[in-house]
Amino acid sequence: MIAALLAASIALACTLLLTPLFVRFAHRHSLGQFIREDGPKSHYTKRGTPTMGGVMILLAILVGYFAAKLLTGTAVTPSGLLMLFLMVAFGAVGFIDDLIKILDHRSLGLTPWAKMLLLLVVTIVFAVGGLLFRDRHGLTPASTSISFIRDLPIDFMSLGPVAGIILFVVWVELIASGTSNGVNLTDGLDGLATGASIIAFGAYGLITFWQFNQSCVRLVSPGCYSVRDPLDLVIVTFAVCGALVGFLWWNTNPARLFMGDTGSLALGGGLAAVAILSHTELLLVLVGGLFVIITASVIIQTGYFKLSGGKRVFLMAPLHHHFELKGWPAVQVVTRFWILEGLFAAAGIVLFYGEWLAVTR
Amino acid sequence: MIAALLAASIALACTLLLTPLFVRFAHRHSLGQFIREDGPKSHYTKRGTPTMGGVMILLAILVGYFAAKLLTGTAVTPSGLLMLFLMVAFGAVGFIDDLIKILDHRSLGLTPWAKMLLLLVVTIVFAVGGLLFRDRHGLTPASTSISFIRDLPIDFMSLGPVAGIILFVVWVELIASGTSNGVNLTDGLDGLATGASIIAFGAYGLITFWQFNQSCVRLVSPGCYSVRDPLDLVIVTFAVCGALVGFLWWNTNPARLFMGDTGSLALGGGLAAVAILSHTELLLVLVGGLFVIITASVIIQTGYFKLSGGKRVFLMAPLHHHFELKGWPAVQVVTRFWILEGLFAAAGIVLFYGEWLAVTR
Repeated sequence: MIAALLAASIALACTLLLTPLFVRFAHRHSLGQFIREDGPKSHYTKRGTPTMGGVMILLAILVGYFAAKLLTGTAVTPSGLLMLFLMVAFGAVGFIDDLIKILDHRSLGLTPWAKMLLLLVVTIVFAVGGLLFRDRHGLTPASTSISFIRDLPIDFMSLGPVAGIILFVVWVELIASGTSNGVNLTDGLDGLATGASIIAFGAYGLITFWQFNQSCVRLVSPGCYSVRDPLDLVIVTFAVCGALVGFLWWNTNPARLFMGDTGSLALGGGLAAVAILSHTELLLVLVGGLFVIITASVIIQTGYFKLSGGKRVFLMAPLHHHFELKGWPAVQVVTRFWILEGLFAAAGIVLFYGEWLAVTR
Repeated sequence: MIAALLAASIALACTLLLTPLFVRFAHRHSLGQFIREDGPKSHYTKRGTPTMGGVMILLAILVGYFAAKLLTGTAVTPSGLLMLFLMVAFGAVGFIDDLIKILDHRSLGLTPWAKMLLLLVVTIVFAVGGLLFRDRHGLTPASTSISFIRDLPIDFMSLGPVAGIILFVVWVELIASGTSNGVNLTDGLDGLATGASIIAFGAYGLITFWQFNQSCVRLVSPGCYSVRDPLDLVIVTFAVCGALVGFLWWNTNPARLFMGDTGSLALGGGLAAVAILSHTELLLVLVGGLFVIITASVIIQTGYFKLSGGKRVFLMAPLHHHFELKGWPAVQVVTRFWILEGLFAAAGIVLFYGEWLAVTR
């Protein structure tokens, strides 16, 4: 746990202290944001705010994690590295996207197909890696079963190894593209995605800490968890929280910089990774509930628009713009959405802990 | 723990759903706020926002606590009732203050001496009550020792029973007036005191939960805690958090209503009570760190002003107005101060848990 606290503190110090330098650098090289042309008009004033704060976040997480490992003299683990890999690789795809936007001076980046293809390749590496590293207890970082609070008795491998692996990769791809898309859509108001991510990763910090505390490797009990390297997931998750808290200091309204696609894809990848590696995939729907309803608002809006031949359910999607156009000030939408995400995350933790209580009794 | 979750959910539902009714009622009877004449000029627009939201908070806490007790069929305890008593009684003093302000149409309420006297009487009742109720394990809700993470070997009673009781009452009075003053001073920007209180009470929710989990009554171990009714402190603390989250929905910028002195005195009393009853009095300085530095800023400002014959350290005290005048938008001050309070509370929890780790090893 000392390592986790070290990782969080170091990552926090990185984003808190170094972000102003990054902002100055970005302004000097005019690395400004080009606001979506389909967003509310009031957002046009945001033009010029540096984007790619996600680079800062990722660097802080990496520094925090590896510094904590070095300082405590503990070894890195496959689970921790896989989570970092998915975050960095997704962040890199987002970085390319952000860079094209800046170079082309418009709000569109990579073509959707190119982006999907890149993310698919990354996800395949992650999924296969998750099944490769087996420890002496026989545990691999990921499992081919669909999981809720623990692995459910629905194993893709029961369909044979080839179909099993393919279906597993599709499943991982589904989760990872869903979460990264969700965080990306949520990142439309100053501080919204950052704050919501702090809450979601914070909840996963508690969940993975409890899995470490009640690991079957340490004590065999009815409620113990068969998860590989839970402590390292705690450390990475804490590093993410620390980095994000420091980033929120600068990203809160009025934002000095944005996380960009670099940040939102990395955070989405991180949430997907921690859910898969802690075997709580379906629980993520609750823990990251705000991202789910914001994504759902876009799907409902576009779906209904097509089906009804031009009618709308919301004044504007994603959901936060709907409330903005209804007259809620942006900062009020942000705080209220943070509260919502807090309630979702609390419900997820209660469900997770309640299952443990029920099983151990 | 089910009782604690019930209490939090019910209190949350109360403030979230009933506050709009209260706001409508307040507007109809013109129960508006009269802004301090010594605050920043931009705050004059706040005139007319209903105050006394603290009444809503207190009602929600009481409903949440007693409903949870009834639904789970468990008995109330002296510790829980004492904490509720200090909150309600401090809130009542604040209520009188708020009422006089509204009736007199000015920003000044009770005279300082009258307020202090009322709070002193309440504190004496609380302090004496804390020493009266002894359970079959010999534990009283409060103890006459000064406490940090546990009781320290500094017992007022070692000076004899009369001097001991008097010094203990003075000590409790010091803590309670300090915290209520701190929350009161912090309550100067929309959502600031509410959010900071959620964090501080949330931290105490974790601390008292751990004291319940590791209570000497349930298991005797080197790290166990000799605290009376820790579970009931968890329940009250959770009820406070639930009520405040629902209140924050309406209190966040732009606030539909304020908590008033009713709210800030009640919350300060609650923090003092939970620190005294969980025997973590000096830890409160860290867990409620934001309230401490904001109070300190006022003391430094007025003290230096008098000593230097008219010079100022800050542009304006309390501290949040200093940063406002330095050009930070109000909402940015609020989020950044929440972050600060989050770091203080995290440090407090780390210290508390670290001590347990050190003692049990």
